[in-house]
Amino acid sequence: MTEDNIRVVLVHPTHPGNIGGVARAMKNMGLTRLVLVEPREHPAPEARWRAASAGDVLEAAQVVATIEEAVAGAQFIVGTSARERRIPWPVQDARRCGERIHSHARGGEQVAIVFGREDRGLLNEELELCNLHCHIPSHEAYPSLNLAMAVQILCYEVRMAALGTSEGTEEDAVWDTPFAPAEDMARFYQHLEETLVQIGFLDPQAPRQLMRRLKRLYNRVRLDEMELNILRGILSETQKQRR
Amino acid sequence: MTEDNIRVVLVHPTHPGNIGGVARAMKNMGLTRLVLVEPREHPAPEARWRAASAGDVLEAAQVVATIEEAVAGAQFIVGTSARERRIPWPVQDARRCGERIHSHARGGEQVAIVFGREDRGLLNEELELCNLHCHIPSHEAYPSLNLAMAVQILCYEVRMAALGTSEGTEEDAVWDTPFAPAEDMARFYQHLEETLVQIGFLDPQAPRQLMRRLKRLYNRVRLDEMELNILRGILSETQKQRR
Repeated sequence: MTEDNIRVVLVHPTHPGNIGGVARAMKNMGLTRLVLVEPREHPAPEARWRAASAGDVLEAAQVVATIEEAVAGAQFIVGTSARERRIPWPVQDARRCGERIHSHARGGEQVAIVFGREDRGLLNEELELCNLHCHIPSHEAYPSLNLAMAVQILCYEVRMAALGTSEGTEEDAVWDTPFAPAEDMARFYQHLEETLVQIGFLDPQAPRQLMRRLKRLYNRVRLDEMELNILRGILSETQKQRR
Repeated sequence: MTEDNIRVVLVHPTHPGNIGGVARAMKNMGLTRLVLVEPREHPAPEARWRAASAGDVLEAAQVVATIEEAVAGAQFIVGTSARERRIPWPVQDARRCGERIHSHARGGEQVAIVFGREDRGLLNEELELCNLHCHIPSHEAYPSLNLAMAVQILCYEVRMAALGTSEGTEEDAVWDTPFAPAEDMARFYQHLEETLVQIGFLDPQAPRQLMRRLKRLYNRVRLDEMELNILRGILSETQKQRR
């Protein structure tokens, strides 16, 4: 599977809570291969607690001594970097990195996503192992993301790439009732206008923009058939009051 | 500024560490307005620690007693929801939500992004306050994201949208009347319910899903202030028929 070709590498993580947070962030997005390069504290209760139901990812984490071991076999390596480098390296934002990671992994390649220390990130010689540097476009007021948060964003972008972006763009794509056809809407507007005249809210001699505004409202929303029935039921009850 | 129009609302957060993580996630992405609805523990040392250099966002957080106070003035409300609902609500993924949040805020509207409890998310009556539900497409093996992680992804998508070039994607970006804020919508629903009971359409002993369906309808459309006045005018006339 594509996801099995992707590993997340943490270089010298200091806080076990972050390791647990990373495990959860990965599993939430369908990734499971975690590699730890000389973690300061592992395993640790705080990591277990933060991992929640991703304890399996945490327990299966591979612990190695060097970043070279961690990326062994990897054919496409992405390193996350906050700082400017004296020698520019190929760099792309998290979205494009997610797409490229997914694309390489789907093609059967081994991919490593490498994250640095909480305080100093990746060192120059570690960044030089990478094919691509990833930039998360944070705000200049406070650009430094928490380690697990950075992993979450990258894993999220990998998953978004895997799902493709062309799905479910309409907000009412999942609905419980068919939307009402034009002829039913026309009957509803007639019923509405008639009722408004009867209760004295609409003066046929001076209608102004009232019906136009109401049509804009209900056409904007697209009424489903049940909603249409409810509204017509209300109109009918209102008309009964009148008699 | 666009970002100043966006508030992040946490409903009954349980763990202070998450509140701190949220403050940092927000500031990393350029957002600063945090509203807490009855947090179990606040302020707390763990929140301070997790906020790191976003202590200012944490300290400026507004604490309120109800979600209604938290969303007061908001003209576009997005709620995060993991669960399937019996009545589907308009829903889009985090990317599209980020675009829409940015687009509304840039247009000068007040926007609220609402997140639920760590264990149970948002309740049905809280979700019904929202114009749009947001779905983070997590993996079925472990779909439940940590609260601060979910906030991070949403804030990241809002920032990506802000940095992007696509403009004017909202269908109601050009409009003639401001959209009604949450508290006016709440008053309208009260008026509507009262009227439906008076005309005998709604049985308070057996309300079924009627009000929920009507809220979904009018939250989907986002009423502008003139439309709201028209509908309330119709309700008042209907009530007069009754007497």
